[in-house]
Amino acid sequence: MLPETERPEELKRAEHLKKVPLSTREVSDLFMLAMGAYTPLEGFMGEEDWRGCCVDMALSNGPFWPIPITLSCETDLAGSIQIGEEVALLDGENGDILGVLTVNEKYPIDKELECSRVYRTTETAHPGVQKVMEQGPINLAGRVMALSEGHFPETYKGLYHRPAETRALFQEKGWSRVAAFQTRNPMHRSHEHLAKIAIEICDGVLIHQVLGALKPGDIPAEVRVKAIDALVNHYFVPGTIIQAGYPIEMRYGGPREALLHAVFRQNFGCSHLVVGRDHAGIGDYYGPFDAHHIFDTLEPGSLRIQPLKVGVTFYCSKCDGMATDKTCPHGEGDRLTISGTRLREMFAQHETVPPEFSRPEVLEVLQAYYDSLH
Amino acid sequence: MLPETERPEELKRAEHLKKVPLSTREVSDLFMLAMGAYTPLEGFMGEEDWRGCCVDMALSNGPFWPIPITLSCETDLAGSIQIGEEVALLDGENGDILGVLTVNEKYPIDKELECSRVYRTTETAHPGVQKVMEQGPINLAGRVMALSEGHFPETYKGLYHRPAETRALFQEKGWSRVAAFQTRNPMHRSHEHLAKIAIEICDGVLIHQVLGALKPGDIPAEVRVKAIDALVNHYFVPGTIIQAGYPIEMRYGGPREALLHAVFRQNFGCSHLVVGRDHAGIGDYYGPFDAHHIFDTLEPGSLRIQPLKVGVTFYCSKCDGMATDKTCPHGEGDRLTISGTRLREMFAQHETVPPEFSRPEVLEVLQAYYDSLH
Repeated sequence: MLPETERPEELKRAEHLKKVPLSTREVSDLFMLAMGAYTPLEGFMGEEDWRGCCVDMALSNGPFWPIPITLSCETDLAGSIQIGEEVALLDGENGDILGVLTVNEKYPIDKELECSRVYRTTETAHPGVQKVMEQGPINLAGRVMALSEGHFPETYKGLYHRPAETRALFQEKGWSRVAAFQTRNPMHRSHEHLAKIAIEICDGVLIHQVLGALKPGDIPAEVRVKAIDALVNHYFVPGTIIQAGYPIEMRYGGPREALLHAVFRQNFGCSHLVVGRDHAGIGDYYGPFDAHHIFDTLEPGSLRIQPLKVGVTFYCSKCDGMATDKTCPHGEGDRLTISGTRLREMFAQHETVPPEFSRPEVLEVLQAYYDSLH
Repeated sequence: MLPETERPEELKRAEHLKKVPLSTREVSDLFMLAMGAYTPLEGFMGEEDWRGCCVDMALSNGPFWPIPITLSCETDLAGSIQIGEEVALLDGENGDILGVLTVNEKYPIDKELECSRVYRTTETAHPGVQKVMEQGPINLAGRVMALSEGHFPETYKGLYHRPAETRALFQEKGWSRVAAFQTRNPMHRSHEHLAKIAIEICDGVLIHQVLGALKPGDIPAEVRVKAIDALVNHYFVPGTIIQAGYPIEMRYGGPREALLHAVFRQNFGCSHLVVGRDHAGIGDYYGPFDAHHIFDTLEPGSLRIQPLKVGVTFYCSKCDGMATDKTCPHGEGDRLTISGTRLREMFAQHETVPPEFSRPEVLEVLQAYYDSLH
């Protein structure tokens, strides 16, 4: 990330470079690189790193890394770029110049290899696979210099915290054990229960929200933040929760993505990552606890951060409280679960969502949002 | 511990040795030594170990050890014993021979030093201090050979597990992360909550019960076991709990005793120890969280086992469930707490104890016990 005062001049210079448009995922990855969330990466991966990462979850010089961070390009454009040349990186959606890449390598992507290793499938019905398959056929690699973080710092003022900032926040609060709670949704009582388990073994919880492009139908970030605030203000001990957001775009890569979530949470200063059921999964591509099991397969020392593996969470009437499949011996009939589809239907029809499923203060925020859609 | 077949002959031989009577605490410690719960100790402590343990929480050759394990004796008897002599160790209550000590050291005890360092008080109103003050003035030290475990294996069949046995049980169940839950009481919902927090981060929980002499008014072990069984059978996932007992006598030494509980749980194969509010404390001698804080003062590497520090636990009507002071922001008025005295009164008067405080299945066992007292 170039210091702010030097950006205007560099932007002027970049306008004269060849221009490579970035997908929304690549833009998010550029911002993650720029803020230091992807340390030790300094740019988009070269072929050896890409292959090591796909096959062995390791960079070519050794460090653990579970998911390729790459920049793709069409063949013609790639052909016109010389090794050593600087190119301007454009936001593919609005054409803004976001940074400069010094290209030190170009290589064709084996998309089948990448998808089968990382996503465990090559079906384009999988949104992560689809993104890879839609990419250009050539990866450009090299160190990046970012000139912008797009709309994020402005749009998510007070929420957009870079790793150095969260680490400073934790230090200020005297937190040495911090659990990251990954979410792209509002928090109902099951999520509250997960966060409270984390609070028992840590000094605090970082509710860490995905701010990158989401799936259609997802709750917008500002509503989510408001709903989470309602929960935190009424049901958590003051000073035990920090809300923050980061600009990643979900790959829905299940277990491999859980590992990516773990590795970059280290950079944000977290000691633990809550890994729930089907973490970062989608559809039936991954077993509900694949993202738990993959942590057990790593070479010791791959990660400093510890997964806090929690299973299915629900209200159980026989337990008379919140429980998980690890703590509740009762049957499905005793457990209150409401699917996302059913919940949206309940909001649409102004049905009362039971307080055992979600706190009234949270439901109020969400009901107002759904009402505003009409 | 001498193998069973060799005991009769050794017992005969021991009858001709000088006899040293043991207090109930010393008997418990002999059994703890014999079963390997106090490894690396091989007998009652010599002066250097005793002093190192009192002052620096370390044995003279380095290993961490937080509480003296000693055998005291009256001056006359001590004077008659030669260094190198074997003496028979008697159960002070019934005169049974329990073992043989090879005396390799005799030393006068600085009781003030021991009590002020270990118990942080020299007041004899403290039952742990009182025991020390009542001891003979001379400690006998040396390796012990146990010839009996007293009534424990017979009285607590199915519950009395030696460290090698719990380790084998854990291995059989495939548990690598096991939390010890120390108790000398039946378990109400607050204890259930603690155990369930432990289950979230471990493979299982060892409910580890004090079988040594208790305070007057404590529930007898067989009733406690039945009450805990009622809880486990109705409210825990099968295969997540093991009940076991061990023959220690509480010292009520608060933070130092919490460390002792931790160090011998390592020998039982546990990876975590639940440390609650005022763990092993009594009266107002220790701050409610002194037993948490003391773990933070240890030299790194002193313990392999990790404390699982949990605070005050209760049902909160605003949280609509079980909570702790780390997770609940609400007031005292929303929290259901019942003192031990009030609870005994409720049983005596057949009042209904709220199900938010204790499970009906547990209450039934306890009510039957209190009824049987009349």
